[in-house]
Amino acid sequence: MSNTLSNPDIIRVLPPHGWIELESHNGSDLDVVNAAKVSFAKHSTEFGKEENGVLKFLMRERHGSPFEHNYFKFHVRAPIFVIREWQRHRIGSYNEESGRYVELRPDFYTPDEARIQKGKPGAYTFTKGSLLQTDQLLRTVDSANKSAFKRYQHLIKAGIAKEQARIVLPNNIYSEFYFSCNARSLMNFLSLRMDESAMYEIRMYANAMFELWRGVMPSTAKAFTETGRIAP
Amino acid sequence: MSNTLSNPDIIRVLPPHGWIELESHNGSDLDVVNAAKVSFAKHSTEFGKEENGVLKFLMRERHGSPFEHNYFKFHVRAPIFVIREWQRHRIGSYNEESGRYVELRPDFYTPDEARIQKGKPGAYTFTKGSLLQTDQLLRTVDSANKSAFKRYQHLIKAGIAKEQARIVLPNNIYSEFYFSCNARSLMNFLSLRMDESAMYEIRMYANAMFELWRGVMPSTAKAFTETGRIAP
Amino acid sequence: MSNTLSNPDIIRVLPPHGWIELESHNGSDLDVVNAAKVSFAKHSTEFGKEENGVLKFLMRERHGSPFEHNYFKFHVRAPIFVIREWQRHRIGSYNEESGRYVELRPDFYTPDEARIQKGKPGAYTFTKGSLLQTDQLLRTVDSANKSAFKRYQHLIKAGIAKEQARIVLPNNIYSEFYFSCNARSLMNFLSLRMDESAMYEIRMYANAMFELWRGVMPSTAKAFTETGRIAP
Amino acid sequence: MSNTLSNPDIIRVLPPHGWIELESHNGSDLDVVNAAKVSFAKHSTEFGKEENGVLKFLMRERHGSPFEHNYFKFHVRAPIFVIREWQRHRIGSYNEESGRYVELRPDFYTPDEARIQKGKPGAYTFTKGSLLQTDQLLRTVDSANKSAFKRYQHLIKAGIAKEQARIVLPNNIYSEFYFSCNARSLMNFLSLRMDESAMYEIRMYANAMFELWRGVMPSTAKAFTETGRIAP
Repeated sequence: MSNTLSNPDIIRVLPPHGWIELESHNGSDLDVVNAAKVSFAKHSTEFGKEENGVLKFLMRERHGSPFEHNYFKFHVRAPIFVIREWQRHRIGSYNEESGRYVELRPDFYTPDEARIQKGKPGAYTFTKGSLLQTDQLLRTVDSANKSAFKRYQHLIKAGIAKEQARIVLPNNIYSEFYFSCNARSLMNFLSLRMDESAMYEIRMYANAMFELWRGVMPSTAKAFTETGRIAP
Repeated sequence: MSNTLSNPDIIRVLPPHGWIELESHNGSDLDVVNAAKVSFAKHSTEFGKEENGVLKFLMRERHGSPFEHNYFKFHVRAPIFVIREWQRHRIGSYNEESGRYVELRPDFYTPDEARIQKGKPGAYTFTKGSLLQTDQLLRTVDSANKSAFKRYQHLIKAGIAKEQARIVLPNNIYSEFYFSCNARSLMNFLSLRMDESAMYEIRMYANAMFELWRGVMPSTAKAFTETGRIAP
Repeated sequence: MSNTLSNPDIIRVLPPHGWIELESHNGSDLDVVNAAKVSFAKHSTEFGKEENGVLKFLMRERHGSPFEHNYFKFHVRAPIFVIREWQRHRIGSYNEESGRYVELRPDFYTPDEARIQKGKPGAYTFTKGSLLQTDQLLRTVDSANKSAFKRYQHLIKAGIAKEQARIVLPNNIYSEFYFSCNARSLMNFLSLRMDESAMYEIRMYANAMFELWRGVMPSTAKAFTETGRIAP
Repeated sequence: MSNTLSNPDIIRVLPPHGWIELESHNGSDLDVVNAAKVSFAKHSTEFGKEENGVLKFLMRERHGSPFEHNYFKFHVRAPIFVIREWQRHRIGSYNEESGRYVELRPDFYTPDEARIQKGKPGAYTFTKGSLLQTDQLLRTVDSANKSAFKRYQHLIKAGIAKEQARIVLPNNIYSEFYFSCNARSLMNFLSLRMDESAMYEIRMYANAMFELWRGVMPSTAKAFTETGRIAP
């Protein structure tokens, strides 16, 4: 049985088109501890102080496998250039909207402000662009969105296959997908994507994902944060 | 939140010491269909005839990824020679009782009857042994169990580390573990381990696992059976 | 030591910008057989008739693991909409050119002819478009490429971060990546991507990949073809 | 093409019956760097000072994926209680000798000296046992080996299936397997199994594996050691 979740489990990210929903989940802080305790043929029925100690020990010593016995299914709407980074994470399950099968909606991501990139590979820093740069970016992206979608519609109307027409669409168009994973894989994602070196846009999704996950496994999320977000 | 399951979700296998419990699960036949339908930006709210058609199509055409958005956590007690085969399945999560950490219990698997192996590699068949053979097997296994455990206890009492003492214990001693996986991985397990070429003992666990899984995803289990148990 | 491969191991795909190179590899038909024979504590030193029989048996019976002890490293240049499908294959290793780090080159994929999509989901067929449709497609894609790249350059010149500028670029721009996998994973890829239901463009890469692989493991490739390209 | 390796690539472990051989491999320190450099559309043809700097940066910052484009195939003979720990590592490929198919050889592991376990779970320490304890252990293990194998042979002679007869054999019997993996997975193995908290017997295999790997990727092995053997 799927635990369908209502509004509190949806967070808007990169609005107005983006969001992430924790659609279903299974598992708790206590389950982590009991997965570890099976090594000792022991079992806890409540999550108390001792259990929290075990959990923190597992996190600190990077005993990862007990964090795998749980399940999180996210439903996500994000721009393709974000999804491209996301789907490089291999420990998890994906199903995504396909531009081969459906006509895509004219939902594009337009940044709020321009960013300036400094430094060398491996040590980039980003600062806020000038008002002029932001203005240029916004206008350029906006006109790019419009002209690309116009071309797409033109090709669709001409009877050309959707899978061909969509190749003119830019990487900031939104797509939608399911992502299922366990907490260990999730923490690996968060350790990389909440990091300040991560791209701003995926960081926003990672932050939201962290909040949704924290609602289900608060002690694990706390231990993860306290250990410096190093995935066990 | 974990859906803790009561007695109907435990099946005895290789009694008196063996069993398998579906301790928790998440996901349904409908979730499979909706994972597939995201490709078309569609969603069903009920599992009806059309949804069953989609599910059967996915199974037949071996579109496997929609079967991954679900979760099954099994708690198992089985002999080590069974676990050795089990843990070769890599798409899933394991935590197991450790003979390094705890003193093992004197629970050993003794077969009901002797088997005779015929044929050549890749095409073995097994038939029932004679009463004499069964008698020999049972007596031999029984004395092996007893003398091995006696040696184990002797070493433990002598103050020798558990991890050294346990090396004298035979492969038919029971151990206990958690196994978490999704339905796609589960079907892969079942396709290999319910097969008549699979070892009898693991087949008993696979059959029980199938029953427990069928209780949660009846239409998927039906489609899987009808397609000849070929994992999608 | 890497076996660097020369020109015969590069195949042009979706020219003029696309190609796939088998940059390095390790393993042979014989290695498949010996991985299987370790079950019997046996070993062959030459690949003869008996070994080919074993190989065909493994393929037919879908004993997959012996096909994993080998290594293929491909270097690929392909349009992003192809890479998006490719990187959904999780059993393998990827490293890719990043639009966050480098300015992208103005290499875009323009189809040779228009396609018309018919049928319903799960049973699409594609036919050649009319000359008019092809003309419309080519002119539209060409102007899309040019205007998108102009916008990209404009943003880069304005000092905006590459990771922001690139979001206006369409999905038919080329990127470059390494893909390493073993023959089992490769066959899984080929079974799905050489299929006539696969998208034309990825099929071209799959066909080239098959040729490169066949040069290294001819008997495995033959058995795979004869079994109807069902991945073991 | 498989690089078959001669004697220097075999190391005896837990003699006289145990060993590990690096039977084949592909990939180098330079390949790691070039997998990373594809992000920048760059390529090095020689491994010099700059390349070593990149490699150390990748290791330190835990950018793991560039370490995956290489291949190591090990052939191993080890006791089952070691193999049980080994095969819990899921990122890699295994094929193993099967007691269902062949009669097992009377090769058993007997420790050199007794160990005493102190401390509590998660913080065990082991000290050398007394001469008396070692004597007790050696005599007990030796008699266990002999009586178990005698029972095994008795059952085999009685015509009972090998898969049943072998269940009386203890966990210190040797088995043989292939293990293929890439350097990232290998480092994960080494980080856990070279650690002083790892069981002595698997540590011996990990140490040998490290030496064999270091012969092929010396700079990667050096960087791994200098970073405290934290797998990237």
